Amino acid sequence: MNQEKIDWKKGNGLLPTIIQEEKNREVLMLAYSTKESLEKAFQTKQGWYYSRSRKKLWRKGETSGNTQKLKKVFVDCDKDTLLFKVEQKGNACHLNKKNCFEEIK
Amino acid sequence: MNQEKIDWKKGNGLLPTIIQEEKNREVLMLAYSTKESLEKAFQTKQGWYYSRSRKKLWRKGETSGNTQKLKKVFVDCDKDTLLFKVEQKGNACHLNKKNCFEEIK
Repeated sequence: MNQEKIDWKKGNGLLPTIIQEEKNREVLMLAYSTKESLEKAFQTKQGWYYSRSRKKLWRKGETSGNTQKLKKVFVDCDKDTLLFKVEQKGNACHLNKKNCFEEIK
Repeated sequence: MNQEKIDWKKGNGLLPTIIQEEKNREVLMLAYSTKESLEKAFQTKQGWYYSRSRKKLWRKGETSGNTQKLKKVFVDCDKDTLLFKVEQKGNACHLNKKNCFEEIK
């Protein structure tokens, strides 16, 4: 993995990670990555992240079964945001919706 | 605007904002919003954000001309991430690419 393109210092080691369904380009959720969670994601080709509330690595779907196959990883030009393209099994949101977003007006 | 759905305290008043091209669902960039920048975005229907480096509100494209028409705004189930669906004029990235993301392997 081409880690030198990522500036982990910028987010104190914790970078926002946009998660998008690869096929239809739906934005599913935002999570946070650490160097360690990203390595695990690359190794296992699964959606691994860092939980800020539980303060530990977590694999998306480890309790719900709604796992994510990791297809591609991108970093932005500021080197401080990641984008995962995934294949989502079932719903991404814990509220039993495909994605975590609701419109506000 | 239905602001009570947003928890501004969570990011110390600064929330990550995913910016997506409405038509083809391309993820263009990530920016940060404050209560004030979001109000400006709603009022003007343009991509207004908060620049962490310059410590001030900025309108996307104010120097480059590559502005964003704001079409829809979403908040996630944790109330701490925003998603803007926009119509991007020209390129979103300052590196003269449509979006800010580059694949890492």
